[in-house]
Amino acid sequence: MEDLREQALEYHAQPVPGKISISLTKPAETQTDLALAYSPGVAEPVREIASNPVDAYKYTNKGNLVAVISNGTAILGLGNLGPLASKPVMEGKALLFKRFANIDSIDIEVKHRTQEEFIDTVANIADTFGGINLEDIKAPECFEIEKQLIERCQVPVFHDDQHGTAIVTAAGLLNALEIQGKSLEESTIVCLGAGAAAIACMELLITCGAVREKIYMLDRKGVLHTRRDDLNEYKKLFANNTDKRTLTDVIQDADVFVGVSGPDLISEEQVKLMADKPVLFACSNPDPEIKPELARAARPDVIMGTGRSDYPNQVNNVLCFPFIFRGALDVRARAINDEMKVAAVEAIRQLAKEPVPQTVLDAYGASEMKFGAEYVLPKPMDPRLLPRVAKAVAKAAIDSGVAELEELPAHYMID
Amino acid sequence: MEDLREQALEYHAQPVPGKISISLTKPAETQTDLALAYSPGVAEPVREIASNPVDAYKYTNKGNLVAVISNGTAILGLGNLGPLASKPVMEGKALLFKRFANIDSIDIEVKHRTQEEFIDTVANIADTFGGINLEDIKAPECFEIEKQLIERCQVPVFHDDQHGTAIVTAAGLLNALEIQGKSLEESTIVCLGAGAAAIACMELLITCGAVREKIYMLDRKGVLHTRRDDLNEYKKLFANNTDKRTLTDVIQDADVFVGVSGPDLISEEQVKLMADKPVLFACSNPDPEIKPELARAARPDVIMGTGRSDYPNQVNNVLCFPFIFRGALDVRARAINDEMKVAAVEAIRQLAKEPVPQTVLDAYGASEMKFGAEYVLPKPMDPRLLPRVAKAVAKAAIDSGVAELEELPAHYMID
Repeated sequence: MEDLREQALEYHAQPVPGKISISLTKPAETQTDLALAYSPGVAEPVREIASNPVDAYKYTNKGNLVAVISNGTAILGLGNLGPLASKPVMEGKALLFKRFANIDSIDIEVKHRTQEEFIDTVANIADTFGGINLEDIKAPECFEIEKQLIERCQVPVFHDDQHGTAIVTAAGLLNALEIQGKSLEESTIVCLGAGAAAIACMELLITCGAVREKIYMLDRKGVLHTRRDDLNEYKKLFANNTDKRTLTDVIQDADVFVGVSGPDLISEEQVKLMADKPVLFACSNPDPEIKPELARAARPDVIMGTGRSDYPNQVNNVLCFPFIFRGALDVRARAINDEMKVAAVEAIRQLAKEPVPQTVLDAYGASEMKFGAEYVLPKPMDPRLLPRVAKAVAKAAIDSGVAELEELPAHYMID
Repeated sequence: MEDLREQALEYHAQPVPGKISISLTKPAETQTDLALAYSPGVAEPVREIASNPVDAYKYTNKGNLVAVISNGTAILGLGNLGPLASKPVMEGKALLFKRFANIDSIDIEVKHRTQEEFIDTVANIADTFGGINLEDIKAPECFEIEKQLIERCQVPVFHDDQHGTAIVTAAGLLNALEIQGKSLEESTIVCLGAGAAAIACMELLITCGAVREKIYMLDRKGVLHTRRDDLNEYKKLFANNTDKRTLTDVIQDADVFVGVSGPDLISEEQVKLMADKPVLFACSNPDPEIKPELARAARPDVIMGTGRSDYPNQVNNVLCFPFIFRGALDVRARAINDEMKVAAVEAIRQLAKEPVPQTVLDAYGASEMKFGAEYVLPKPMDPRLLPRVAKAVAKAAIDSGVAELEELPAHYMID
């Protein structure tokens, strides 16, 4: 780990600090160039946009520009370290947007006295961008923040810690259940953790067919149930009318375990209590709720996912967020709605069922990747993710009536 | 002009909309790269910055990142067209920052209900950046906005329409007066216009030695004088205890005319009233307060400057703002103070007195540029501006105690 530490610091510091910079997309060498780029030529697009605001998409970078915005209240698993300390993560997210979907993205770290001030700040700068990716904002504040920003902004607002995680988790779980011969509708689900990711995951699973009453969510105090009087409005939606109180109580005969909590919080004995052919996603990162080798020893019939790249079935948000924004931007979606999220789930699922190109195998030094217990999700460096997921999302945006453009862009027609 | 219009719109629209994009400064191809750029490696610089905030300059792009921020209330000479319409100008400014000083710069357009909300918004996002360039914000609000932001932000805040204009104007005027054999201290100055640029220009000239009582400033209603009761606090500083009321009154025997107003507002007859060997900067753009050919016909002994590139002595902010920020960033100045502004004035002045490299002559298709009535300011594409002005500014920041770094960066030592 000391080695990773040194390497990571060196990577961020050399040869220049940080990870992203600005480039020019137009010539700026001669006097003529500059007369077009700035005064006097620039007055022309200004006038056009003033009389027809949508022309901002024609004459500025708005349509391909996403802000990655945080207040640093929940940085990775490190907690509330403040906005400035979140900057490497937000720059990293911008790097991933560019690397995976050619989206220009800039990090914005926001300090604020009140929640309202944070919302005002983001809403006030939102028109600069084609979309807003919220990141590392703690629960439960993140729910109200996202809700209000969606209402106030003209561009899509997406809290990736919630919905990106939910989409990839749902895709992986649905494929795992399919392999196990189970349906989401009939499955009993245990969700360990009741934060932003947990709640978003369970809501999306319900949208995909899961039954709310069959979900048992647990926070630090145990099962969320209807007699608890300490639940916020978001946890209350998952308060189960049950006498079960502990993880051991609810894990009995559960089909699915989703962990978005912390390291080593479920034991081999608890895993043994699960129903036949269970699915166990232990997404706490870097240390999962149970080590895959222990879970597998306890239950050879389990399908297991984690947040780590060094185990099979990595639940990695990068499978989704670059592409869901790519699709949304390409048809100028005003929002990222449930239809688009479900389309992303389905596109990611489908890709895992198809033969893997040799280039992807090579990138991971693998001889085979085949749909099955150890491959329920595509790999982040699979280049098919971009056209597939983005196209599905763009199409869903059009079909559900949130796209400003009425047709898919031409490049989606090639596939 | 129709030709320019079409070219400018085409330039902004094709092959991609806008003028700037994001690039990666670090490798992001392999799994190893991504493990350093994002999870898990990114946690390391996060921890470093959390425990030592100044490390943001070491591990993120903050130290070379400037936000160009506007609310669109005074776009070029076009007026208050709102934040979105200002986006091409702000992107253009970002392009100039990159082109001339390799500063990474991103535009942020801010909508707001109150002035306080604008200030809060900018202050809340300021830590993201190494500096804030305010742009195209109308007077008199811009004065209070800049003042409060300077107080609240840890990074330099600079309203270019004020201070960039003032620095370049002062450099040109001082050189012109030197050629005319006059001193700033003894000169009578007429300033037509009383907006942001006018007030900043006159304040900086006073810092450079001009006498406040010898300055006559005019707004739309005529001379600012002590008996007027309609002056805001900024104009009041230039209320002259005089019986003179009109431009014709004050232009009589004036040594210097500075126009930052509108087209054709001073006549040949009025120019004829000026003192011997006058200096006349008609900076209204694109149409100056008087056409140079008319002024010269009226007064062959005049030294004339305009805002246009197709006449001699162009007063162009790009001679200053990229380099003053370069110098400020390079020593991590907490502010851009008067000492740094005066250092920029002097560096720009000095450069105009030196032999011009052949490459610069070639860039402008000129056979000669020599310090004199038709060359009182260096040309924007003179590559010596960057090292000279930035170094002078950086040194002034250190000497005046506003720099976090105590020594000039090594690259300034080469010259």
